Amino acid sequence: MTINSLTADTRKQVDAFLQQKLEPLTLNKRLSQAMQHGVLLGGKRIRPYLVMTVADICGANQNDALRAAAAIELIHAYSLIHDDLPAMDNDDLRRGQPTCHIAYDEATAILAGDALQTLAFEILTESSMQDIPADRQLQLVHVLAKASGARGMCAGQAIDLQATAKNLTESALEQMHLSKTGALITAAASMGVLCGSSDTQKWQEKFEQFARYLGLAFQVQDDILDVVGNTEALGKPQGSDAASEKSTYVRLLGIEGAQRRLQNLHNKALQSLGDIPYNTDKLEQFSDLLLKRDH
Amino acid sequence: MTINSLTADTRKQVDAFLQQKLEPLTLNKRLSQAMQHGVLLGGKRIRPYLVMTVADICGANQNDALRAAAAIELIHAYSLIHDDLPAMDNDDLRRGQPTCHIAYDEATAILAGDALQTLAFEILTESSMQDIPADRQLQLVHVLAKASGARGMCAGQAIDLQATAKNLTESALEQMHLSKTGALITAAASMGVLCGSSDTQKWQEKFEQFARYLGLAFQVQDDILDVVGNTEALGKPQGSDAASEKSTYVRLLGIEGAQRRLQNLHNKALQSLGDIPYNTDKLEQFSDLLLKRDH
Repeated sequence: MTINSLTADTRKQVDAFLQQKLEPLTLNKRLSQAMQHGVLLGGKRIRPYLVMTVADICGANQNDALRAAAAIELIHAYSLIHDDLPAMDNDDLRRGQPTCHIAYDEATAILAGDALQTLAFEILTESSMQDIPADRQLQLVHVLAKASGARGMCAGQAIDLQATAKNLTESALEQMHLSKTGALITAAASMGVLCGSSDTQKWQEKFEQFARYLGLAFQVQDDILDVVGNTEALGKPQGSDAASEKSTYVRLLGIEGAQRRLQNLHNKALQSLGDIPYNTDKLEQFSDLLLKRDH
Repeated sequence: MTINSLTADTRKQVDAFLQQKLEPLTLNKRLSQAMQHGVLLGGKRIRPYLVMTVADICGANQNDALRAAAAIELIHAYSLIHDDLPAMDNDDLRRGQPTCHIAYDEATAILAGDALQTLAFEILTESSMQDIPADRQLQLVHVLAKASGARGMCAGQAIDLQATAKNLTESALEQMHLSKTGALITAAASMGVLCGSSDTQKWQEKFEQFARYLGLAFQVQDDILDVVGNTEALGKPQGSDAASEKSTYVRLLGIEGAQRRLQNLHNKALQSLGDIPYNTDKLEQFSDLLLKRDH
């Protein structure tokens, strides 16, 4: 079992749902195609898988959870398109394919990212959810927005850009990742709980704690793979962090130090699960496979 | 009375509200400052004024309406920051001030735009509204999202970029403006109604029709001002549309033709108001002043 085979079913469901939302956007064909390029070219669908698995544990209606899962993937997809732009990380390759501004052009890539962000909020509000009261549906939108913006993902990316070629302390590096990728991964867990039944809501903080450690561990593994992985499996050039003088855990702690940190974070994630009085085996399996991935 | 004096009170209220939302975003100072630069440097606040005036006519709670007004202004502000980028319209000057990517840098401007879009949806959902049921609050988010994305504003900007140096027909030009600026101006009217009392909801379509004509007329006047206005009053170089070979009403119809079209759209906007059984004098005054503005 690999992380890709574990998430395969979720990936199919989410991709089918997203395709059905993206295809009718025909007002401008080029913009539409660029949006689809950015969303449907692959990816592990980690955030949707986390939403849907937590939602399942919490007894959610799976149609409601699918909508939340699709929305968070749209936010992730838009952020990748914008991060790849020449003014940001200037990447030509993503998941083994040309990035959006290479396949189309910069202006179209900026707009495609913008419109994918909007679509996330459109999907979350286009009609009532089946088993979720309207005030909880509002919370779903709010959690996603808060995690994505200037208190979360966008701030993390800004910190990352400003940190290039600087030596961050481990605590500053952690703070950066907690916002850059951690906020959205934590939001995935929160959204899963919010989709669930009323009596599961009180475990939200524990699920979030699990996701926070998992998100950090994921990032440490990402930094390790950039050094020890290979370009073909990664779908992007191995060694690109070092080449662009990014602050990374490997740069700060060395390979072995980074591997110890990864193990430590993984243990903390599993401990958070231990506090939850439901069967969380699927989340344990998910974190095992995610943190042992080779790309 | 000018449009700027008419909207002065709304401007103060909305700016104070936005300032209070923007100042606590301290996770990354540079990003925060760029966001504030993009939002608080001025502007007529036409969309907030329209939300609040329609909301007032429909008996809305003014605190609820202020939140909706601030959210739509954030979407407008983000779109300006992104439209000004080198890959898009490449403008150095906006409202007489350096554009966001000139005052900061391109990467920060992209992120500031992204985070302002997110903040719009965060503000609309951060707590219950005072007099609006949760399902109607969800509709507010939905209307704003739908108008902003690939069915609205973003599609319009994509069409505009692709239309440069081409001769559009009048109907294609109208279609472009209906999405590029019309969708958001129409959403302002819809959001005003959604903030109002239950029995005013049935007039939503009429208010939207007014806003649709007003939005188109506003665009025609914009095209006229680019030819007959002066750089100082406009806060941007006069003649910039012609210089960048933009499709405009003046290019298509000549100055006199564009002025006739403006009058015709203005009349249609006023006729739409005539069907609404409330006192709409303020909207009439608003459209009069808006369409006679010199910048």
